Amino acid sequence: MAGNSFGKLFKISTFGESHGKAIGVIIDGCPPHVNIDLDFIQSELDKRRPGQSKITTQRKESDQAQILSGILDGKSTGTPIAILIPNQDQRSKDYSHIQNKYRPSHADFTYDAKYGIRDYRGGGRSSARETAARVAAGAIAKLFLKDYGIEFFAHVSSVGPIDAGKISTGDIQTVLENRESNIVRCADTSCADEMIELINKTRKNGDTIGGKITGYIKNLPAGIGEPAFDKLHADLGKAMLSINAVKGFEYGSGFAGSTMLGSDHNDLFFTNKEGQIKTKTNHSGGIQGGISNGMEVNFRVAFKPVATIMRDQESINNLKEPDVVSGKGRHDPCVVPRAVIIVEAMAALVIADHLLRQKAITRD
Amino acid sequence: MAGNSFGKLFKISTFGESHGKAIGVIIDGCPPHVNIDLDFIQSELDKRRPGQSKITTQRKESDQAQILSGILDGKSTGTPIAILIPNQDQRSKDYSHIQNKYRPSHADFTYDAKYGIRDYRGGGRSSARETAARVAAGAIAKLFLKDYGIEFFAHVSSVGPIDAGKISTGDIQTVLENRESNIVRCADTSCADEMIELINKTRKNGDTIGGKITGYIKNLPAGIGEPAFDKLHADLGKAMLSINAVKGFEYGSGFAGSTMLGSDHNDLFFTNKEGQIKTKTNHSGGIQGGISNGMEVNFRVAFKPVATIMRDQESINNLKEPDVVSGKGRHDPCVVPRAVIIVEAMAALVIADHLLRQKAITRD
Amino acid sequence: MAGNSFGKLFKISTFGESHGKAIGVIIDGCPPHVNIDLDFIQSELDKRRPGQSKITTQRKESDQAQILSGILDGKSTGTPIAILIPNQDQRSKDYSHIQNKYRPSHADFTYDAKYGIRDYRGGGRSSARETAARVAAGAIAKLFLKDYGIEFFAHVSSVGPIDAGKISTGDIQTVLENRESNIVRCADTSCADEMIELINKTRKNGDTIGGKITGYIKNLPAGIGEPAFDKLHADLGKAMLSINAVKGFEYGSGFAGSTMLGSDHNDLFFTNKEGQIKTKTNHSGGIQGGISNGMEVNFRVAFKPVATIMRDQESINNLKEPDVVSGKGRHDPCVVPRAVIIVEAMAALVIADHLLRQKAITRD
Amino acid sequence: MAGNSFGKLFKISTFGESHGKAIGVIIDGCPPHVNIDLDFIQSELDKRRPGQSKITTQRKESDQAQILSGILDGKSTGTPIAILIPNQDQRSKDYSHIQNKYRPSHADFTYDAKYGIRDYRGGGRSSARETAARVAAGAIAKLFLKDYGIEFFAHVSSVGPIDAGKISTGDIQTVLENRESNIVRCADTSCADEMIELINKTRKNGDTIGGKITGYIKNLPAGIGEPAFDKLHADLGKAMLSINAVKGFEYGSGFAGSTMLGSDHNDLFFTNKEGQIKTKTNHSGGIQGGISNGMEVNFRVAFKPVATIMRDQESINNLKEPDVVSGKGRHDPCVVPRAVIIVEAMAALVIADHLLRQKAITRD
Repeated sequence: MAGNSFGKLFKISTFGESHGKAIGVIIDGCPPHVNIDLDFIQSELDKRRPGQSKITTQRKESDQAQILSGILDGKSTGTPIAILIPNQDQRSKDYSHIQNKYRPSHADFTYDAKYGIRDYRGGGRSSARETAARVAAGAIAKLFLKDYGIEFFAHVSSVGPIDAGKISTGDIQTVLENRESNIVRCADTSCADEMIELINKTRKNGDTIGGKITGYIKNLPAGIGEPAFDKLHADLGKAMLSINAVKGFEYGSGFAGSTMLGSDHNDLFFTNKEGQIKTKTNHSGGIQGGISNGMEVNFRVAFKPVATIMRDQESINNLKEPDVVSGKGRHDPCVVPRAVIIVEAMAALVIADHLLRQKAITRD
Repeated sequence: MAGNSFGKLFKISTFGESHGKAIGVIIDGCPPHVNIDLDFIQSELDKRRPGQSKITTQRKESDQAQILSGILDGKSTGTPIAILIPNQDQRSKDYSHIQNKYRPSHADFTYDAKYGIRDYRGGGRSSARETAARVAAGAIAKLFLKDYGIEFFAHVSSVGPIDAGKISTGDIQTVLENRESNIVRCADTSCADEMIELINKTRKNGDTIGGKITGYIKNLPAGIGEPAFDKLHADLGKAMLSINAVKGFEYGSGFAGSTMLGSDHNDLFFTNKEGQIKTKTNHSGGIQGGISNGMEVNFRVAFKPVATIMRDQESINNLKEPDVVSGKGRHDPCVVPRAVIIVEAMAALVIADHLLRQKAITRD
Repeated sequence: MAGNSFGKLFKISTFGESHGKAIGVIIDGCPPHVNIDLDFIQSELDKRRPGQSKITTQRKESDQAQILSGILDGKSTGTPIAILIPNQDQRSKDYSHIQNKYRPSHADFTYDAKYGIRDYRGGGRSSARETAARVAAGAIAKLFLKDYGIEFFAHVSSVGPIDAGKISTGDIQTVLENRESNIVRCADTSCADEMIELINKTRKNGDTIGGKITGYIKNLPAGIGEPAFDKLHADLGKAMLSINAVKGFEYGSGFAGSTMLGSDHNDLFFTNKEGQIKTKTNHSGGIQGGISNGMEVNFRVAFKPVATIMRDQESINNLKEPDVVSGKGRHDPCVVPRAVIIVEAMAALVIADHLLRQKAITRD
Repeated sequence: MAGNSFGKLFKISTFGESHGKAIGVIIDGCPPHVNIDLDFIQSELDKRRPGQSKITTQRKESDQAQILSGILDGKSTGTPIAILIPNQDQRSKDYSHIQNKYRPSHADFTYDAKYGIRDYRGGGRSSARETAARVAAGAIAKLFLKDYGIEFFAHVSSVGPIDAGKISTGDIQTVLENRESNIVRCADTSCADEMIELINKTRKNGDTIGGKITGYIKNLPAGIGEPAFDKLHADLGKAMLSINAVKGFEYGSGFAGSTMLGSDHNDLFFTNKEGQIKTKTNHSGGIQGGISNGMEVNFRVAFKPVATIMRDQESINNLKEPDVVSGKGRHDPCVVPRAVIIVEAMAALVIADHLLRQKAITRD
């Protein structure tokens, strides 16, 4: 109820503060017999890890995942999988200067308003460090869904005003390689350099910048998602909006769809040569009435610029007195390159949960 | 789990199909001693009711709410409040022509894919008629929150390409009156006529058009919302995305925020003359780290054009054969004028739930 | 959260007060394609119905169930099934004499302590009338489980000090007939008359008496139930303890098992001629480690005597002043004959829920 | 959903196998500002710890709790509290002899039936070792409830056929001292020696024996508990039944109440000299209609004899062939002395959860 769990059948519960002993996650509801590939889990965490390139924070965290339970001989047993990620480079002293100050657009003030107490070191629980636990759990979800052929792909589709063109995800191996070929993780390699340059320039100015991530879910069978409140896109939306710094979510035609005519927006059904039901266009983004229709699911997630900038900012302290917050610590100039893997992880968690929900009601 | 409940402490469960005997809702968790103003509930339902103006569907439904339980002498007793809304104008025969066809961009195909059976009459459970139950429940939530001074306001901020300017919600009575002064429910009265004209033109063409609704939450105290997954904006987002036809959600700076610099985006804190903590700008949309900061919450919701158009459309039937769906039935040319009250209702349900969650952990 | 829902995947939410307009239930999560036999549902309700025999309350309620949603052509569609049971014989005036008094061992005082307001008419929400909704929902669960061959049987195994002998449930048709052959619903017909006589004598004395119900679940496959907190018997126990007037629950060897030696208590496994794994004894009551083992599940439920007696009793009013509560109204002298079907219904709801949970994690 | 979480507002999620790296728990929903007394938590764990006396298993586990998150300067912060208890004395080889065998009345077979895979070492997840996590979480719940004056007490009220007399819990310090004065943890010191002697005799015979624990909740205010399904005693019952080896639960008059007359069973209200509402008797066990009435809550829990005995037993293997299970490993001859603290912990978790639920709906 306190908001640290996600999912109903494939459920995760995360814990941990940025500068405590460790962060971690319990995955409860992972079916038995899933091959738990530890290297894959670590490779996912490495994509989110700080310090991985010159355009990310220089905090040093190896983010080594330790699995404590739920696995026997490399397979899930159906019991809770607990994953621990110890914090290493804590440098809590970096934060003593903001112990009693409210950093602009951070959660310092709201945590104080809510709890009357907060772990100020590195933002405590409000730190994006919490998302490492999501990535580890998301990796387990991906391993589970691999057996069903369901795949996830996300990439940076914009940095500030620089917007990548539409990409084709037809060959997922190619788009993955394209994305990983550049440190900004944009699969449209033609604009990656420009994005990197903008991030670097912004960083040198002591500033930060926002961006967008586009996500895709491939080979999702029709029939996944629930009517009314737990529509598939509603749960995807909540999943994405729960990631730090996210300001908006849209799927299929999205906000642009609100300007369209029905006659242009409707996706006409047809039966393809393989006898599969498809739609000629995909303004629906693969979801109709909250339930997948077998087309590719696609969505976009908007991230605001990171709130920590390397400049002095006016603010107040917890006595409501004016004060100045100066830029310190090690932070990302732009969050989207590392967030790509978080978006994929959250999408995988939503799909794993809804797939189990569908399996429950499907007649054998 | 089947997706027909919403909220955790202030929880609603809805039921009913478009052309069944009735739709309805159980509200479980409404605190005792709330004054249940039946006229208010009915007036809210009337704003969503079909047939209320020339730009809405002409289906006749009086949407008379019957309260079956949970009320004594006009006050809530703390036990479940069940509300029943009988269906009147069912005309199920209107739908026999689509019994075995998949209407484009409707949920016909996905319900079949999911369940292998569907109530085809008027879309069955997938019909937006289900939202009447939400409005009734949302009215109860509003009555509960009234004692805390928390208020909700939403209006149509765009129809197709026609976008209203920013409005000031300083005086809620005035914006409400402005909104109700026109049938499109836009508080910017200067563009309401243009919107109505566009909807009328679209309707005459047998077509439909999308639009956007902007929502506001006023007088929300700081400290409401949970960290990690149940961030206040994540739950608002899920709530809005669960409304039929919604394609996107953003709050505060939203998608535009993804193009901004941190130095421009950060909301600087100050203490106002009344000793309250405020921010100079409100790109945060009243929510920081998932928790309210005492500023006005604002968000935008994108609706696609209604899928039922009065034209012949190519499609397939449930034998995967080509077929033609012809436009019949009574439908809205544009959904946003009636959806305004649904957006408010869902926002009220989210806030009622989160307020109770905060009360639970607050030391007496 | 307010405690009016039960189950996670096969979930029910009930509403209604004893003397309000109606009581009812939403069943959310019933899989599609279940044959919904209305006559069966009604016949189940008839077994719980007041006024059915001379040893039950004479309140007149036909308990006619109206299904409002979720059914098409006699089959469940996978969407919420709402069932309404209107209250007919309300005689609310019968209760004005206790409006401000706290009846001994009733929930009058505790509801006031909890909510500060209560519907005093017939106990309001605390009335056992609420269990009619459970019986209707349980009937749906039974219909769902019928396709899996899972059957439920309960009977009155004791009234006051009169304890029936052990019965064999080998032929369920026979025990059902035996049970229904007498109005006390004891399948051991040799002691039914004695039980009925005791109840009649007790009623004539203006008194009430307790009793026990023994429940059986037959043909439950092995593997149903979850480890740790949601053990099958833990959920069965909660289900039974949530029925009005229940004071205790035990399964298998139960309380007697606490006096036994391990060498006597252990159930030895063997493989029978059909190649099925069985145990030689069944002290486990069909459940080991919280998970069914394929043997018959059995359990016992203790009911206290009904609190309403036809005598004057000392008490206090809501001003804490001494007062006298005199016996009025129409009440059961012994609750177990009507509760048999409630016990079966709750057992069916638990099994339906856990079966779906198991289906969710079972590899196709 | 997979059954490893308990509670709704004060929610715990446990993980870990008997012979894995560690077991542990996340407590999500503990309010902020609770003084987290580490010594108290450890002292609670020490009461459950194996090897503490000659009548418990000789497995060596120091059960040192490590708190990983959620605490700042000795106080809870409102964020998840993760507690880790590493496994030390694993001796997994002790279990290779039962890798493919189904031990009688253990969960070996049912886990295989459920998951098709199981961690056979020490029972894996089905081991009572999991309850250490509950005790740690229960200690946090007790610390939270201490500020409300609510106290918990449980003791061994029977071992095999030896039943202690009723005890007075008027002075909790005295009964606690009495209980801790003997290794069987019976507060009735007059029969403790006899119990210990019986356990020793049983152990020497290579056998095990069952017993009962009686629990008490003191100073619980009236109004705690929810109507319908989440009755306070229903949640207490589920909590107790979820503890390994529990076969039955009763509260107040319990099973004996089923033999009583209403005129004897009813608890008459009166107002005491302090102006408090009390009942003359307490057959209700402090709970009426599922809600606390301000009297002492009391309940009894029946434990079967431990299934592991030091004798050869006939059984089968996972190929359904006859096999012999010989008694090995280190096990308790009687589980109740160590289970006393588990019963208290589960009771505290139930009350913490329900107290928060009541706070949520209480008008400020």
